[in-house]
Amino acid sequence: MSPLGPLLDALITRALHEDLDGGDPTTEATASEGARAVGKAFARSPMVVCGVDVFARVFHLVDPGVRVEALHADGARVVTGDAILLVEGSARSLLMGERTALNFLQRMTGIATLSRRFAAQVPDGSPLRVTDTRKTTPGLRALERYAVRTGGAFNHRDQLGSAILIKDNHIALAGGITPAIERAKRRSPHTSRIEIEVESLEALDEALAAGAEVVMLDNFTDDLVAEGVRRARGRALVEVSGGVTLERIPTLARLGVDVVSVGALTHSAAAADISLELEALGAP
Amino acid sequence: MSPLGPLLDALITRALHEDLDGGDPTTEATASEGARAVGKAFARSPMVVCGVDVFARVFHLVDPGVRVEALHADGARVVTGDAILLVEGSARSLLMGERTALNFLQRMTGIATLSRRFAAQVPDGSPLRVTDTRKTTPGLRALERYAVRTGGAFNHRDQLGSAILIKDNHIALAGGITPAIERAKRRSPHTSRIEIEVESLEALDEALAAGAEVVMLDNFTDDLVAEGVRRARGRALVEVSGGVTLERIPTLARLGVDVVSVGALTHSAAAADISLELEALGAP
Amino acid sequence: MSPLGPLLDALITRALHEDLDGGDPTTEATASEGARAVGKAFARSPMVVCGVDVFARVFHLVDPGVRVEALHADGARVVTGDAILLVEGSARSLLMGERTALNFLQRMTGIATLSRRFAAQVPDGSPLRVTDTRKTTPGLRALERYAVRTGGAFNHRDQLGSAILIKDNHIALAGGITPAIERAKRRSPHTSRIEIEVESLEALDEALAAGAEVVMLDNFTDDLVAEGVRRARGRALVEVSGGVTLERIPTLARLGVDVVSVGALTHSAAAADISLELEALGAP
Amino acid sequence: MSPLGPLLDALITRALHEDLDGGDPTTEATASEGARAVGKAFARSPMVVCGVDVFARVFHLVDPGVRVEALHADGARVVTGDAILLVEGSARSLLMGERTALNFLQRMTGIATLSRRFAAQVPDGSPLRVTDTRKTTPGLRALERYAVRTGGAFNHRDQLGSAILIKDNHIALAGGITPAIERAKRRSPHTSRIEIEVESLEALDEALAAGAEVVMLDNFTDDLVAEGVRRARGRALVEVSGGVTLERIPTLARLGVDVVSVGALTHSAAAADISLELEALGAP
Amino acid sequence: MSPLGPLLDALITRALHEDLDGGDPTTEATASEGARAVGKAFARSPMVVCGVDVFARVFHLVDPGVRVEALHADGARVVTGDAILLVEGSARSLLMGERTALNFLQRMTGIATLSRRFAAQVPDGSPLRVTDTRKTTPGLRALERYAVRTGGAFNHRDQLGSAILIKDNHIALAGGITPAIERAKRRSPHTSRIEIEVESLEALDEALAAGAEVVMLDNFTDDLVAEGVRRARGRALVEVSGGVTLERIPTLARLGVDVVSVGALTHSAAAADISLELEALGAP
Amino acid sequence: MSPLGPLLDALITRALHEDLDGGDPTTEATASEGARAVGKAFARSPMVVCGVDVFARVFHLVDPGVRVEALHADGARVVTGDAILLVEGSARSLLMGERTALNFLQRMTGIATLSRRFAAQVPDGSPLRVTDTRKTTPGLRALERYAVRTGGAFNHRDQLGSAILIKDNHIALAGGITPAIERAKRRSPHTSRIEIEVESLEALDEALAAGAEVVMLDNFTDDLVAEGVRRARGRALVEVSGGVTLERIPTLARLGVDVVSVGALTHSAAAADISLELEALGAP
Repeated sequence: MSPLGPLLDALITRALHEDLDGGDPTTEATASEGARAVGKAFARSPMVVCGVDVFARVFHLVDPGVRVEALHADGARVVTGDAILLVEGSARSLLMGERTALNFLQRMTGIATLSRRFAAQVPDGSPLRVTDTRKTTPGLRALERYAVRTGGAFNHRDQLGSAILIKDNHIALAGGITPAIERAKRRSPHTSRIEIEVESLEALDEALAAGAEVVMLDNFTDDLVAEGVRRARGRALVEVSGGVTLERIPTLARLGVDVVSVGALTHSAAAADISLELEALGAP
Repeated sequence: MSPLGPLLDALITRALHEDLDGGDPTTEATASEGARAVGKAFARSPMVVCGVDVFARVFHLVDPGVRVEALHADGARVVTGDAILLVEGSARSLLMGERTALNFLQRMTGIATLSRRFAAQVPDGSPLRVTDTRKTTPGLRALERYAVRTGGAFNHRDQLGSAILIKDNHIALAGGITPAIERAKRRSPHTSRIEIEVESLEALDEALAAGAEVVMLDNFTDDLVAEGVRRARGRALVEVSGGVTLERIPTLARLGVDVVSVGALTHSAAAADISLELEALGAP
Repeated sequence: MSPLGPLLDALITRALHEDLDGGDPTTEATASEGARAVGKAFARSPMVVCGVDVFARVFHLVDPGVRVEALHADGARVVTGDAILLVEGSARSLLMGERTALNFLQRMTGIATLSRRFAAQVPDGSPLRVTDTRKTTPGLRALERYAVRTGGAFNHRDQLGSAILIKDNHIALAGGITPAIERAKRRSPHTSRIEIEVESLEALDEALAAGAEVVMLDNFTDDLVAEGVRRARGRALVEVSGGVTLERIPTLARLGVDVVSVGALTHSAAAADISLELEALGAP
Repeated sequence: MSPLGPLLDALITRALHEDLDGGDPTTEATASEGARAVGKAFARSPMVVCGVDVFARVFHLVDPGVRVEALHADGARVVTGDAILLVEGSARSLLMGERTALNFLQRMTGIATLSRRFAAQVPDGSPLRVTDTRKTTPGLRALERYAVRTGGAFNHRDQLGSAILIKDNHIALAGGITPAIERAKRRSPHTSRIEIEVESLEALDEALAAGAEVVMLDNFTDDLVAEGVRRARGRALVEVSGGVTLERIPTLARLGVDVVSVGALTHSAAAADISLELEALGAP
Repeated sequence: MSPLGPLLDALITRALHEDLDGGDPTTEATASEGARAVGKAFARSPMVVCGVDVFARVFHLVDPGVRVEALHADGARVVTGDAILLVEGSARSLLMGERTALNFLQRMTGIATLSRRFAAQVPDGSPLRVTDTRKTTPGLRALERYAVRTGGAFNHRDQLGSAILIKDNHIALAGGITPAIERAKRRSPHTSRIEIEVESLEALDEALAAGAEVVMLDNFTDDLVAEGVRRARGRALVEVSGGVTLERIPTLARLGVDVVSVGALTHSAAAADISLELEALGAP
Repeated sequence: MSPLGPLLDALITRALHEDLDGGDPTTEATASEGARAVGKAFARSPMVVCGVDVFARVFHLVDPGVRVEALHADGARVVTGDAILLVEGSARSLLMGERTALNFLQRMTGIATLSRRFAAQVPDGSPLRVTDTRKTTPGLRALERYAVRTGGAFNHRDQLGSAILIKDNHIALAGGITPAIERAKRRSPHTSRIEIEVESLEALDEALAAGAEVVMLDNFTDDLVAEGVRRARGRALVEVSGGVTLERIPTLARLGVDVVSVGALTHSAAAADISLELEALGAP
């Protein structure tokens, strides 16, 4: 993430406005202007770190004089009590940026940690990918997709415009699977594959015949998935979707599925528990 | 929420850009320009509805011609299978706005549903308030605070500037509880109370003596909470904070606590499971 | 103000766009690209300085190479002819930023100066606070509130959401003082006090009985204020509002009023008279 | 102002955010969702109305269902007690938009009123123009310039880029009046005149000889102004600048000055005193 | 384009600010407030219309009361003298929006017209696609890509993130074609194909062996293209890039190339010549 | 352009978002995080350089660690193969910023190059100015006007508000040339001249009699231009407009025309052909 950090500034600035538009009277009252402090962000449970550059950028925008040092890089696994980041600078600046910096770090780390749990279910050597979906928090998509990758899972298409994905409603409106795929072929950039969601083996067969390049099996049982994989082999990638749990991942890997997409990676990850502990420094 | 909906437009527009800057080739390919559709958003588990105005505003920004009707208002309890909202309009517009509208609705409803679960633990007649914290999603604070209220819980201060809340770090920097409160009094607007976090009964006594108006007992056991409430009675409101679970709420209510603040309401609520099902309409 | 200066950048950038979107042909024609200059901002009347960080930030955004040194800090009292700030750098940059930097500095200093005049009327030892109101310049509220504090006056609530303040219209819509206060209690954050505006002693009595924590006496004569203070003592803070002049402040202080709110601090302060005088430096 | 009102939306939305980001708990508590009200904005002193479209647009952005009717157009002279605007709609919307709408209206009307006072000093038949300067409130330049015109005064150049205006510092950097004008001629658009500030009659002569098209006499006495006008006649327009008071305008008009520029029109106008009085309506 | 028009508002508003921040004194002086007019936008040369919704939206943002009617839809071929759009409404609004509306329409139509010229060179029945590149005008990419499609050409990938495209510099940094493709496979979303630029037949062979899915032949002669197509057949799509002229398109189609990408479609299209002619209407 | 570069940041950031919101997976896959590279931007045809500061600023916003050195300043004439700029830094940053930086540089250089071609047609010693128009790319006006000047041509008015320019439609709405000029005089700032478009010698005479200060001869033949210049001499500047070609410039200069305005300078300039060639550096 290191280049392009500045592209995040609008996002971070909005978050700072939410918390600080009225100033911080508590801090202004209790910390004198010249006071300096040092502190560390600690993990309070095991987690996969994600967002250290965003954390640092928040403090940079509050006060370019704050120094932030990452003790662990994004992707590192840490345990309870590990210090993740070190901050040092004006006490006022540290207190003012603390909550916003943590809000980003905790959310990104929460997603990376959950993504890792899913990725860890994929047996060694299996090509199966666990991916995210477009069920991301409004405004945070780029950060959440990055957190998914940081945890070892993969990204699905970024935007509606990145690739064709034909769902039920599209099929109905186009008048069937075959016309939907026909019409999509013309509109699809040649750099993207055409994916279609199917709800039965018959639909799968029609999709394959019409030239689908990725087939998404929606709410198929394991047996149906097995048969679907058999029919699609060599003709299209197979994606499984719909409430897939951690426990089912190894089975799907064994059945030869290529991709499992999991909305929960982004829409239901709990924030990681991280706290910032500060200590006053002597006079500068 | 009905007035001021337009203040959300920047937020919603950013979310639409995330998903739609590259257009929606799938929809453009499969739904013809004049095609119309109707659909409903269904609850796929029991939940407390929240965000119907935001959901409607998303579609309004995509296409003012889309009609959205709320079948349940914010705050309504619905069960699995209940239809929450009805949409009708251009098929293309419905498909383009669907994901963004649901992303808002699912998050807000998730928070309202979790807030209701906490609020429901407060015994009838108890004045105990369960409140949120500033641990909100960057950019979504106003919506998340609204969802907390919709679920029957309460809001803590909105921004750092809304009220004084003196924490450990502030005490350390000010050189103690008494000077921290003294200095905060002068800076605090007369419309706000001064709150201070304490970690022991001795600290509580000093805070009360110095004129604290709300005392936050941080990670106190039930016995210590009981004693804290006794000492603060008539002198300050008592807030309990720090990893409070659903199960502990009735006990805290019985002990006479005034406020319990729970970060999980906003930082760890899972998205509610809601799906939008569309149906093509005949030619207009 | 030193941390969070960057939160001002959007505001300053908009002001620069207003003045500079079409470039500065006069400066481009008359000052060569490498020319350097030095200058000082002088007070042309006695004033309370406010806004030196904003002044410096304007030049920083025009050209990070400009050096700005504050010869007096915010809050300093200066007399006619005193130099407040020193600038040095590219002559073009200084000329381009001059007007915008001064527009901020003059307005903020004007408000601080007027606030000081009001604050100076409060007798020594009196706890009376003179506060601002929400009658601020659109877009400049945070800066103007800061200027009020810099001048030695106090801030009232920041936003509508910071604290409850029930006015005439609210009372009428709620069906009376008592129901208005009852309903507001539930909605008010526990960190804020409930304030209500009253127009008679009877209304004051009802407000106190219903639990008002701050009472605003609207357009009361001195005699009525005295009686109001007597009735509210120990039960609520007393605020006086409505066209209060400088001359009346000592009387209100003597009567035991807690707060006087004065819209004029922000809505009618004249800009302070400050000029920037530049001098060309020799070749770099 | 009627077309292009929408260009103001960003400005108004920022002002609404300042006041309403935390919601309006007082209003939500006291006015029920369906309650409706009607009200009028009253002048509390004589004034020249300005900003009725902006006032209306504020309410439109809060709630498009609010109806605003201007009883007096911009430029109208009203007396104490006159109703300027009528509003009707949701009580909540009216209460939420009130302060922001008035803050714009009061400032614009204050500037128009002061501008009228200056314009009224110009004798009938005199071509003298009183103009504003670039000493405007950051972010509000377009509105303030409009208010100046509404009061019957004139605008000076809008931005630095609109026309050449060579001041002391430019002359010093260019190495004298003649080279400054020479260099400016090439850079000036052919649609603009070249103006230069002069501080003596000798400087005036040199400027005229070099081809200045407008000469600004800076802090000239009446006698010097008279002589300056005589020398410039038929060669350049004459502008007088520098602390010009209301009382001096007729003299300057009589002396044949073309333009008097007055910074106070925008930087020191007090807000006009206008109040909004609401009344609850029966059920809709 | 019809839904999502509102996503353009920020773009259009910025353009309006560029032209109108200082108001339109000419129009205010010459057209009275109530004057109405009607007009038509005429083609002054043959062209493929593009941008009628954007043209309409510009006027809508200036004044929602302006009526715009498209006499030809996007994609229509018109000849010199054809009327493309009709406008009717306030004369002031029409004059203020004219230039901005035309600037969009002329650019989009220019691109669509040039795209049509290229597309028309593709022989009937040939699957060859002419596509754009990322050489678009900063800020206008979505509109320009739409114009390309409107003219009958195709889009290449939208953003850097939409699909992998490995160029010279990437190959050098990765240490060769094979490692570049290997490493890209893991990072590429499963919905996208991997494309690589090659500069010789040897490089082509290596790319195909490593699993490239699209090969871009950079500056190949016709003979080399023919051989490249032969080698890639059934293994990868073939794209030709690098200064391809109109005249060469039929040859490339005959050789079996799949895609020709042409930067000139967006970076060097001249604006189409369109004028707006207005006529005053009688009193409303 | 050097000061005020930061005012471009919003524009550049938007362009970066267009290209990079989805990240750059190709670069992330092929260039390791620590890899460094150096490169040069080469002219692939003769051109007048313009935009080196914008080019540098793009990379600065991507990564402040990238070093950009201009080998030629804006306005320099370079030939095929000349290196214009040198870049050095993180390979990832260079690859991510390349396209956006070039898109700005190529457009600005294209306009400067075309402007130079027009300017070069003006005979030595002739005061004739070739100017741009308001037919600029939405969002890029300031940059395009700068490019015009860099090429040696001149700017016309910047915005509608910079100066009065009365066109056909204004004349029709005002009821004739004389009333249009009369009304415009009052509204025009004294720093601007009043220009009017005329379509016949009779109209020219009326305009001059009414006090026009610039007359724009619209689509006049050379003979009519000659007569127009004769009539206007000493009374108004003469501008010629309407499809003026390169070849006609010397004739118009000889006829004594003051200004020729050419929309093509900005609306139809092809992008200059510039490429960036990178080379990997050894380990840092």
